[in-house]
Amino acid sequence: MADRFLPELAVSQWFNVSSPPTTASLRGQVVVIEAFQMLCPGCVTTGLPQAQRVAATFGPDVVVLGLHTVFEHHQAMTPVSLEAFLHEYRITFPVGVDQPSAEGDLPITMRRLGLRGTPTLLLVDRAGRIRAEAFGHADDLALGAQIARLIDEPAPTVPDLASPTT
Amino acid sequence: MADRFLPELAVSQWFNVSSPPTTASLRGQVVVIEAFQMLCPGCVTTGLPQAQRVAATFGPDVVVLGLHTVFEHHQAMTPVSLEAFLHEYRITFPVGVDQPSAEGDLPITMRRLGLRGTPTLLLVDRAGRIRAEAFGHADDLALGAQIARLIDEPAPTVPDLASPTT
Amino acid sequence: MADRFLPELAVSQWFNVSSPPTTASLRGQVVVIEAFQMLCPGCVTTGLPQAQRVAATFGPDVVVLGLHTVFEHHQAMTPVSLEAFLHEYRITFPVGVDQPSAEGDLPITMRRLGLRGTPTLLLVDRAGRIRAEAFGHADDLALGAQIARLIDEPAPTVPDLASPTT
Amino acid sequence: MADRFLPELAVSQWFNVSSPPTTASLRGQVVVIEAFQMLCPGCVTTGLPQAQRVAATFGPDVVVLGLHTVFEHHQAMTPVSLEAFLHEYRITFPVGVDQPSAEGDLPITMRRLGLRGTPTLLLVDRAGRIRAEAFGHADDLALGAQIARLIDEPAPTVPDLASPTT
Repeated sequence: MADRFLPELAVSQWFNVSSPPTTASLRGQVVVIEAFQMLCPGCVTTGLPQAQRVAATFGPDVVVLGLHTVFEHHQAMTPVSLEAFLHEYRITFPVGVDQPSAEGDLPITMRRLGLRGTPTLLLVDRAGRIRAEAFGHADDLALGAQIARLIDEPAPTVPDLASPTT
Repeated sequence: MADRFLPELAVSQWFNVSSPPTTASLRGQVVVIEAFQMLCPGCVTTGLPQAQRVAATFGPDVVVLGLHTVFEHHQAMTPVSLEAFLHEYRITFPVGVDQPSAEGDLPITMRRLGLRGTPTLLLVDRAGRIRAEAFGHADDLALGAQIARLIDEPAPTVPDLASPTT
Repeated sequence: MADRFLPELAVSQWFNVSSPPTTASLRGQVVVIEAFQMLCPGCVTTGLPQAQRVAATFGPDVVVLGLHTVFEHHQAMTPVSLEAFLHEYRITFPVGVDQPSAEGDLPITMRRLGLRGTPTLLLVDRAGRIRAEAFGHADDLALGAQIARLIDEPAPTVPDLASPTT
Repeated sequence: MADRFLPELAVSQWFNVSSPPTTASLRGQVVVIEAFQMLCPGCVTTGLPQAQRVAATFGPDVVVLGLHTVFEHHQAMTPVSLEAFLHEYRITFPVGVDQPSAEGDLPITMRRLGLRGTPTLLLVDRAGRIRAEAFGHADDLALGAQIARLIDEPAPTVPDLASPTT
């Protein structure tokens, strides 16, 4: 199967971050992305608490990002509501608002990623490849194993573009 | 201790109801009021599920009402957001939006009731008296006992205002 | 339906009690009986914790009794093992060992009661009538209501046997 | 810190196994040992279910073993009682009865391992070294990561004793 790479995140607004992450800035790091909606019960009950546990357990070895992929009830889940939600649920990792699309209900990054719904957990390796995608519930033991293995993979060797190769 | 009566509910908008309840229409019924905020984690985790269990367990013997007492993050918990919340969390009992006050953060009914915060569960007897108030967690066994006892109390005898009393 | 009365408890050994309860001594009191086996997962997970909550919630208004109705693995659940179990799980209400029968696997009281298995919760009113029987899971709200109603029933009037009735 | 090796397991009886494991037979495999007592609530509630999840999640990549380290209530937790317990709680991985000691309450393997109590989870690498020990609760995410890393370590190179080395 061909590698599947994390596309650029189309985010209209970031919370809990000073400098917005980009695929370039994430390069070389293991990234865990929690795609959620603030009014999705499964996200509130299981998805987001798991993302918080991942951040607490793996610390600086992974980058945990939330992606607010609103595909229904758009007027109900605005950035103003999201900000209060993040405050009340004590979510401290960076969260980006997936950019609404003019072409339909699905926001742009969600469409690029081809996500089925929320919550969805994505694991991205140091080279930017999406290595796992879990829609709904993900088991902690198996997830811990997957993340550890991504952390332990060697960083990709990046060709030095500036150097002459001849 | 003097009796404490349920004040008129100052509600700007009702959901899940065709005819808005009033103290007069509630008279003669046992009423369970769940005061909550849609972005309050304790309300989502324990308070509202308990109110749903009360409605499922006692059926027509009690009237379960939600009261959305927003006292913080007002812009984040508008009626538009609340409506989606009720849909997503499958809350089917009547929910009223406590009317915002021009004089401060606390909405009018919450101020009238002197509530300390959310979630708060109120039990109101057939005569309109507030018989119990639980801020935070309420135990199911004790709550079931309290509600059964209110149900089993005789309905208040209402003086027939039309009758001459001489 | 005809009334069904609590039969005499055939108990070979009591724990956590100085004076063994009898149907006569229980007369006039609301009694909650938890029939269990110490190696039954449902009893350990839900039945016994619920009986402990009942004892904590209703205090002196009810008598909570455990009945160790061993109907399988008899050699594995002897009184010696039960005593350690009660200690480790901090069960402090009286527990009786249902007397083994010479005629089959079911102990005597369990057979008299016609129980289907464990855990089973029985509610007995002040007159000694079995008013409710729950095999498996019982809901706390409904149970609290049932117990409160039994507590609130008037004590049975006992005919004074010593008085002449002519 | 010096390496700490798994000592030979002093086991008086095995359940769920045809051929008793030995340090020699375990060599080359990642081993997860759950030391428990059948009447220890923490073992029943968290320790053993976690060991079952480990077995289900990692399948043939790890060997999960239970060790029944009875250090109190010896008469209450005999092999007869343990066998019924394993049946009722559907524990299907091999469980060994830690051999009682003539010299005190602690059984022999528990003493050799220097365990503090139950539940205790031990992780043993392919070379027989104890790599982690968790007394009480162990977090699933962190445990999954630790086990994955032990699985991914290369098997130790065993000197071929039969070969001449000169």
